[in-house]
Amino acid sequence: MVHGRVIALSVTDVRFPTSVDQHGSDAMHTDPDYSAAYVVIETDAKDGLKGYGLTFTLGKGTEVVVCAVKAFAAHVVNKELEEIVGNFRGFYRQLTSDGQLRWIGPEKGVVHLATAAILNAVWDLWAKQEGKPLWKLLVDMDPKKLLSCIDFRYITDALTEEEAYDILKKGKLDQKEREEQMLKNGYPAYTTSCAWLGYTDQQLKELCAGALKDGWTRFKVKVGADLPDDIRRCKLIREMIGPDNLLMLDANQRWDVQEAIDWVSKLAEFKPLWIEEPTSPDDILGHATISKCHNKVMFKQFLQAKALHYLQIDSCRLGSVNENLSVLLMAKKFQIPVCPHAGGVGLCELVQHLILFDYISVSGSLENRMCEYVDHLHEHFKYPVTIKKAVYMPPQDAGYSTEMKEESVRQHQFPDGDVWQRLISGQNV
Amino acid sequence: MVHGRVIALSVTDVRFPTSVDQHGSDAMHTDPDYSAAYVVIETDAKDGLKGYGLTFTLGKGTEVVVCAVKAFAAHVVNKELEEIVGNFRGFYRQLTSDGQLRWIGPEKGVVHLATAAILNAVWDLWAKQEGKPLWKLLVDMDPKKLLSCIDFRYITDALTEEEAYDILKKGKLDQKEREEQMLKNGYPAYTTSCAWLGYTDQQLKELCAGALKDGWTRFKVKVGADLPDDIRRCKLIREMIGPDNLLMLDANQRWDVQEAIDWVSKLAEFKPLWIEEPTSPDDILGHATISKCHNKVMFKQFLQAKALHYLQIDSCRLGSVNENLSVLLMAKKFQIPVCPHAGGVGLCELVQHLILFDYISVSGSLENRMCEYVDHLHEHFKYPVTIKKAVYMPPQDAGYSTEMKEESVRQHQFPDGDVWQRLISGQNV
Repeated sequence: MVHGRVIALSVTDVRFPTSVDQHGSDAMHTDPDYSAAYVVIETDAKDGLKGYGLTFTLGKGTEVVVCAVKAFAAHVVNKELEEIVGNFRGFYRQLTSDGQLRWIGPEKGVVHLATAAILNAVWDLWAKQEGKPLWKLLVDMDPKKLLSCIDFRYITDALTEEEAYDILKKGKLDQKEREEQMLKNGYPAYTTSCAWLGYTDQQLKELCAGALKDGWTRFKVKVGADLPDDIRRCKLIREMIGPDNLLMLDANQRWDVQEAIDWVSKLAEFKPLWIEEPTSPDDILGHATISKCHNKVMFKQFLQAKALHYLQIDSCRLGSVNENLSVLLMAKKFQIPVCPHAGGVGLCELVQHLILFDYISVSGSLENRMCEYVDHLHEHFKYPVTIKKAVYMPPQDAGYSTEMKEESVRQHQFPDGDVWQRLISGQNV
Repeated sequence: MVHGRVIALSVTDVRFPTSVDQHGSDAMHTDPDYSAAYVVIETDAKDGLKGYGLTFTLGKGTEVVVCAVKAFAAHVVNKELEEIVGNFRGFYRQLTSDGQLRWIGPEKGVVHLATAAILNAVWDLWAKQEGKPLWKLLVDMDPKKLLSCIDFRYITDALTEEEAYDILKKGKLDQKEREEQMLKNGYPAYTTSCAWLGYTDQQLKELCAGALKDGWTRFKVKVGADLPDDIRRCKLIREMIGPDNLLMLDANQRWDVQEAIDWVSKLAEFKPLWIEEPTSPDDILGHATISKCHNKVMFKQFLQAKALHYLQIDSCRLGSVNENLSVLLMAKKFQIPVCPHAGGVGLCELVQHLILFDYISVSGSLENRMCEYVDHLHEHFKYPVTIKKAVYMPPQDAGYSTEMKEESVRQHQFPDGDVWQRLISGQNV
């Protein structure tokens, strides 16, 4: 079905100066400029379709990811799209196991972010050529074909291909009903927009009141920099949202293990549902209750060690849809609810597709499940998320919702775009 | 004691075309060009001393690490050297926890390799200003000062600063004798130079015969690509070296967990001492017997989970001397012998300092311990290792042995150096 040969892969360093207003600030990232390495893939097909992909970054370092994308480009350019998605497992492994580039990962950090940006563009193009939103492409896909996109290396001790096939076969049962349910009711979301660490109490109150009015019932608060400050802010929010709404905490890797235990016990009175990233994201034995991981091998162990109560997938840190599929399937086997990480630049746009697929075709459950939502930067996307009363409404446009507006990309290109040129001439950046 | 303000940090992409002769080939890295991101730090001090640092890479991707080094440069340039080493823990954390760059790691992959290259240069400069080889600087250093170089974040549940202090205090006992012993007898080494995966049986035989003649008694073989091939090669080597010499295997992350167990059981008859990196380096629960890790948090868990029988430090993948110190101290507490990873470009030159310090001031034992040696590319270093009858003789020159010959750097600069220009014009690179 797919067609065309890749004739060009370009990548742009796009940055939004969010640090100016402390949007996105937390205990470890005090001044993030939400950014993306933004990939565009062109083919020689006459359909005029391009694939857009991105990975999310925090400002400085985006140029490093851009550099890594360029290093991978030779694996993509001049390939037939059919050659790529027809043996997607092989292509995935070609990127992640490049004999020279593997050394500077493997499958983690800069090279894995670059892999995600490139493969996100491939998935976008594939879905566009099929004329479907990505979630629908996945939902309609034959289980065998779907499994052929996953590299099972390093996870077969937790999940074999046969087990994955059984999960997907069972997922077909009542799939149609769940799809209709999603189209009608949407997927439940929680908001992180009210309580960034750098916000004043006044800002926090106003944002919280507005969110309640918009129907939000689940709220996440950034903590971990200063205990008395955390207590004051948690108290304030709990008072605002009342005893029945949900409250989640995120420490963004700030603590040592014992420190985390002590600190969280002081915040327990505010009844948080989970505490996110209490310590190093590498620390499986440090017992996070919810954690973002850098690859499937880390998720596998968190699941095997029963160190997770909720699992956060990430559309841009893992190796695109391919690796996220493997994690969704492992989560199903280990019966751990998936609550995706989102926010940043485009993470909401992308991850909604994955969690819709998860509900419709894998987990079949909404129990203890919700998808993060952050209300920033959607205006720069051509197909932004639709949130209605605190739920994600399934996107209808073909593709992976990854495409940004041309004008936004041009303006925010670092350092030559107008936005940056103005900031650089007017003030220190 | 240290002095001067850093006025420049430069970084060069240096590559050696080792893939042409299959040096360094293994089951996951079939065509490595041994390379380095090479950092030079200059100060305004009148002593004319510069700090040289590097991290090892495999060719492609070196430019990505170079890009990351440049992103970190602002943290180094214009700082007083005293400000850096006087609060080395703080400086280490400044690099590893940069609010924007942290996202594309943290403490792993490209950004961590870049951190290592920069800090290796700082340690080289510090040792040069003190007029001592790095190992001697460490051995003579007051335990409190030494601990002030280590960031204990994320490891206090395995090793507290107080415990580390006790280890170092005890290490002072009979330190003088051990130092003299090392100066006289050197530190035991094993060789990996005989059996790269891409070598023919004939090459393997000749190299093995030569090594035996030179006094080598410990040999490492690369395995993991093809089982019958591995059996043939292991048999050949075991016959060459006899039953009493040591044989180690390295699969370079090739297998799944069950695959590793099956494969290794087929090679058990050749009595390997260890099997290195059988599976993903992230897989703590996959039970490696010896593994290189990307940071102290991973090593901590391997130790806590008793998943390691030998521990391989790496002078260029961990965050320089600082992070290696924390790992040596954890290994001491958990009573696991350290057998450093070496080879590549400069890894032997650097890691010999760390293992000498480990013996003299931390472990005090040579039991089950040896340091890897690979006989490549030493001719490009100004202060190359001295190997005598299969032992490392302690280096005497001031610094961290990181400095390369100017001419070598110029010739091998990628892609503009003469060596590459010749290869590019004459053949595909």
